[in-house]
Amino acid sequence: MAHVGEPRASSRRTVEPVKLSELGEDRFLARVRERLPEPGPAVVLGLGDDTAVLDLPEAERTLVTTDVLVEGVHFLRRTLPPRFIGRKAVAVNASDIAAMGGRPVGVLMSLMTPVDSSVSELMELFDGLIEQASALGADLVGGNLCTSPGPMAVDVTIVGASRRGRVLERRGARAGDAIYVSGKLGASAEGLRLLNEGVALAASGSLIVPNALRSGPLPLAEQCLRAHMDPEPRLELGAFLCENEVATACIDLSDGLALDLHRLCRASGVGSRIEESALPIHPGVLAWEGLRKRPPLDVALAGGEDYELLFTVREEGRLERWRQEGNVPITRIGEVTDSGQGIRLATREGSERSLEPAGWDHFLPPSGHRGT
Amino acid sequence: MAHVGEPRASSRRTVEPVKLSELGEDRFLARVRERLPEPGPAVVLGLGDDTAVLDLPEAERTLVTTDVLVEGVHFLRRTLPPRFIGRKAVAVNASDIAAMGGRPVGVLMSLMTPVDSSVSELMELFDGLIEQASALGADLVGGNLCTSPGPMAVDVTIVGASRRGRVLERRGARAGDAIYVSGKLGASAEGLRLLNEGVALAASGSLIVPNALRSGPLPLAEQCLRAHMDPEPRLELGAFLCENEVATACIDLSDGLALDLHRLCRASGVGSRIEESALPIHPGVLAWEGLRKRPPLDVALAGGEDYELLFTVREEGRLERWRQEGNVPITRIGEVTDSGQGIRLATREGSERSLEPAGWDHFLPPSGHRGT
Repeated sequence: MAHVGEPRASSRRTVEPVKLSELGEDRFLARVRERLPEPGPAVVLGLGDDTAVLDLPEAERTLVTTDVLVEGVHFLRRTLPPRFIGRKAVAVNASDIAAMGGRPVGVLMSLMTPVDSSVSELMELFDGLIEQASALGADLVGGNLCTSPGPMAVDVTIVGASRRGRVLERRGARAGDAIYVSGKLGASAEGLRLLNEGVALAASGSLIVPNALRSGPLPLAEQCLRAHMDPEPRLELGAFLCENEVATACIDLSDGLALDLHRLCRASGVGSRIEESALPIHPGVLAWEGLRKRPPLDVALAGGEDYELLFTVREEGRLERWRQEGNVPITRIGEVTDSGQGIRLATREGSERSLEPAGWDHFLPPSGHRGT
Repeated sequence: MAHVGEPRASSRRTVEPVKLSELGEDRFLARVRERLPEPGPAVVLGLGDDTAVLDLPEAERTLVTTDVLVEGVHFLRRTLPPRFIGRKAVAVNASDIAAMGGRPVGVLMSLMTPVDSSVSELMELFDGLIEQASALGADLVGGNLCTSPGPMAVDVTIVGASRRGRVLERRGARAGDAIYVSGKLGASAEGLRLLNEGVALAASGSLIVPNALRSGPLPLAEQCLRAHMDPEPRLELGAFLCENEVATACIDLSDGLALDLHRLCRASGVGSRIEESALPIHPGVLAWEGLRKRPPLDVALAGGEDYELLFTVREEGRLERWRQEGNVPITRIGEVTDSGQGIRLATREGSERSLEPAGWDHFLPPSGHRGT
């Protein structure tokens, strides 16, 4: 749990405020400011004026992205501790910066929270956010707090900078390019299933497992839980793909491989052919879906929230250095085709079928809600 | 009402989707993209990739700010039509850019909305947002849509650029500086009171007035309603104050003069003395609060959402050109003092009292909620 500040000697209060409604927005944000590390050189003016002011490198482009985590849609406060909410809200946005090959610089958070929220819960959330921003080389530079008559919502914006004047776009893939994905697929979605079945990570870091699931492969369950609760944006890989002109197109996997592959192909005006047997499905998905007697493929294709990079490559030799030195594995899963051929999946059985853009769309009924 | 797109010849549907749950996020956003005007030269990559990519002027600083409008806190869908929600969400952020003396460049919106939202309502909201962004010289460059199990929330981020390498901060005021405010005070808060009493603006632009209020000054009621529903950020004034080095400190009035004056003085480490008789209270506040037999001063000091600029000036002669040519009046309301003297109000009766930082804090009980 976060430490919630010192009692002030000059105060007439003898008890620390425990609810935000006792402290107010301005005094809460003043406490947040006290917890910020020394900002990086790009921050001219951080939290506390009307806007943040950044001094970005002159030859670089400015990247900006925004994404929100909503209670009851993306997380439950019951299963995701505040520190992880803060960490994840930054990570999912940094993943978008990674997909462009950029580096994050400034983080802003707009927090909507019930009026009776506790100071310690919110400070823990801010601590997670500040800690994640620092780990990724960025600073918290702005934000605002607002009451919510509904669920908590954590909306984060990240401003970043390109590297060497370049960005990775979705639209550069051409027929003949190879298609790669980083990491393993489906772990986050499997982690969510396990969370919903009562598996949890205690604040101490130990795994809590309901009796009915104790015979399953618990180390794999923990990997899946961590992938869901604390995803890691692939900033180093994005930087490598961009700076060395390795990738012709790139997207991060937020809504599932199938849907995000459709998006990349649509932006590039191409088709693609993916090999089922090549997909790097996370062993936790294989094991736990095996126990459930359900096909792991759906989780890997449509589970969402992988936050891996999906990218296309023309000269595959350029990947050699990453294979030797990179901090995450990459896997060739197929190739780009002409647009007329559509998006196809070559199955293990040797047949081919159209790969539907199934995945996480907030408003289409079949997806259902995450986190509930 | 917005036009909701052409029926597609290739579709098996014969009826246009009316709910977002029939259309989905990707297809909805594709329609939004079709409605965007040609972007400005700073937009390298707009809506539709992982991040927006901007090419900001090299000698300028990057400004970034985020602020949200939440249904039930800042607005009611019953009284604020979607087009005004979109316009206002941009305006309140642009007001922060104005307070720094900057210019808005890119707008991002994170929209949380109930799953059964209608396509036409949301398109009208986007139309308002796009229209306001264009009017202010900015482009919609990013955003995301997300289901909300609670109220609608419209979270906007604006990225802007400084002018001539300068920004207006809150912290430059010194004892002896004059304190100025733009426009008139309290109109927005009075407009909210009138809205809550049943006064409304029809889509046609005509005023709807309940019988009990018909004998009041209706043109002033309409001015107050418009100030609340469709505030105008003071970008030209901010530019003048910044480019000509006129203001020593500046803040925009979002939470009421009293609270925002405290913020400016705290940031600058100074006190201040304000003259009640000098305050430019909006005539609609004087008239309608007069009818209610309530003091107009509270509305002017603590009403909030004025979106005027409060600024301090050392060499008042530099304001002459604005007085001649500016598009909004400015009024001298007091002067900066030493911090030891606190924040004081000189009343009409000739006495002086401490000016409490009363105003809009989301989490402090006395404020109550706006919009409900």
